[in-house]
Amino acid sequence: MIAVIGSFRIPVDRLAEARPLMASVIEATRAEPGCLAYSYAEDVADPGLIRVSEQWESREHLAAHFRTPHMAAWSEQRALLGLSERRIHAYSLSDEEQL
Amino acid sequence: MIAVIGSFRIPVDRLAEARPLMASVIEATRAEPGCLAYSYAEDVADPGLIRVSEQWESREHLAAHFRTPHMAAWSEQRALLGLSERRIHAYSLSDEEQL
Repeated sequence: MIAVIGSFRIPVDRLAEARPLMASVIEATRAEPGCLAYSYAEDVADPGLIRVSEQWESREHLAAHFRTPHMAAWSEQRALLGLSERRIHAYSLSDEEQL
Repeated sequence: MIAVIGSFRIPVDRLAEARPLMASVIEATRAEPGCLAYSYAEDVADPGLIRVSEQWESREHLAAHFRTPHMAAWSEQRALLGLSERRIHAYSLSDEEQL
């Protein structure tokens, strides 16, 4: 299993505008083949900092995700929203343990 | 490296009360040995759903985290806040790739 973990920043005064666009990306992505989890969440201690958490069946599914029309649209939308500080990494996951 | 990924729910009408308590847990935990990242973030599409993302140097550091006084305090506080739907898993991470 693959995890994608990271964050990006949306200017606080653009958050209300960003929220429905992010909801659309989330909904469309969760319907993609191989998507096990996909969420954006606003840091409770740092307004405007959006935490990204994703899980995918494979790197091939993740690569296909970046070629979808909704990701192309979001890539343009987020630039117009003034998105910054994008820091996102993929990892291979193993040894799952419930805490 | 170890990742902790998961979520829990705080009743929406208790969020304002929960926010400074969560900020305290975050601050104290980030100062722990072996803590590389620790965040709580509210899902942009599901109010009250708090996404947890952590990175630790080792499972030993993570185990020590659960024995700290601030985690004991938070465990009591979160029960009083009506925390529910706690689903948190640890994984081993490998093959990091920047996206």
